[in-house]
Amino acid sequence: MPPEEAAQPVRRTRLTAEREAELFGAVLDLLREVGYDALTMDAVASRTRSSKATLYRQWRGKPELVVSALRHEAPVDLMRFDTGSLRGDMRAIARHMDEGQCVKDAELLSALGHAVHRDAGLHQALRELLIEPEVRALDQMLQRAVDRGELAADSPARTYVPHMLIGGVVTRFLIEGVYADTDFLVGYVDSVILPALGA
Amino acid sequence: MPPEEAAQPVRRTRLTAEREAELFGAVLDLLREVGYDALTMDAVASRTRSSKATLYRQWRGKPELVVSALRHEAPVDLMRFDTGSLRGDMRAIARHMDEGQCVKDAELLSALGHAVHRDAGLHQALRELLIEPEVRALDQMLQRAVDRGELAADSPARTYVPHMLIGGVVTRFLIEGVYADTDFLVGYVDSVILPALGA
Repeated sequence: MPPEEAAQPVRRTRLTAEREAELFGAVLDLLREVGYDALTMDAVASRTRSSKATLYRQWRGKPELVVSALRHEAPVDLMRFDTGSLRGDMRAIARHMDEGQCVKDAELLSALGHAVHRDAGLHQALRELLIEPEVRALDQMLQRAVDRGELAADSPARTYVPHMLIGGVVTRFLIEGVYADTDFLVGYVDSVILPALGA
Repeated sequence: MPPEEAAQPVRRTRLTAEREAELFGAVLDLLREVGYDALTMDAVASRTRSSKATLYRQWRGKPELVVSALRHEAPVDLMRFDTGSLRGDMRAIARHMDEGQCVKDAELLSALGHAVHRDAGLHQALRELLIEPEVRALDQMLQRAVDRGELAADSPARTYVPHMLIGGVVTRFLIEGVYADTDFLVGYVDSVILPALGA
């Protein structure tokens, strides 16, 4: 083997950021149009003029591609909220949720919330790539509040914070017929989440 | 007009309770099999050997029939919980939710939660026939706690109790991959709902 070849790292073609964003946008458009079940890798390849080999090489399959597209469009990135107080952090999340895909795309999320009951691969990808990182980031935020003395380390409500946050967003449309907005979410943080935590 | 005819009230054929239960069961079976969008009154008529005229006469249309079937199978009937304390009432709801259709049929509910975004008639029927009566019953339960001095009349968490309750049920599968059970729901009542209410 010639030395210059041995020195080459194994490379695979990376998509440019622009190309990736365009591809993720097309995946979400298709999801809105046909739903998760009817979405095929063939349709994604055709819509984006990609080869299926490229799609499978970059992502493992349809669940990972869909969740990666969702994560790209809805980068919650809880770690960037570090306001110095639990109330400030939680309100920052509430305001961010209103701006984010999670509320504007409530229909898309409800479609996925339905599909996870039938598709274990989608559920696993959603939990590994989206939910578990957010739950860990949320727990680090709560740990900072414990370290600052704002929150008891053994607050029984602590493990329920992800359920409270996601529950507030997804139930408002069902119950009231309007989407959760900043006023609703900040009110939910102030009236439910912080008092439940005893903070 | 002969007097005996004028004396007759307008009558329509009522289904027997057994026949109605059988019909509702078939509607929910069909819902699980094909989903809300693909469910047709023709299919219900054929599966239950009814005439479509009967279905439309008894219910106004597909949304009302589906929601009536759901209400029949999942009679939450919050009014029957009156244990004498807010904690007792809320725990009774938690235990009842675990027994009820709302958890065992999480997939069916997520299908409807998705369909309401596309079908205003379904959403209206669901809110009028199922959600609003439950929200009113829940508010009467909270008012009894206010009257007993257990709860401040202006508790800011009061209006969020329906969101908390439904949110606890629907988010657990998404976040943890297991369905809400009695332990989870009673823990949610004790750790989240009662502390948020300051009760």
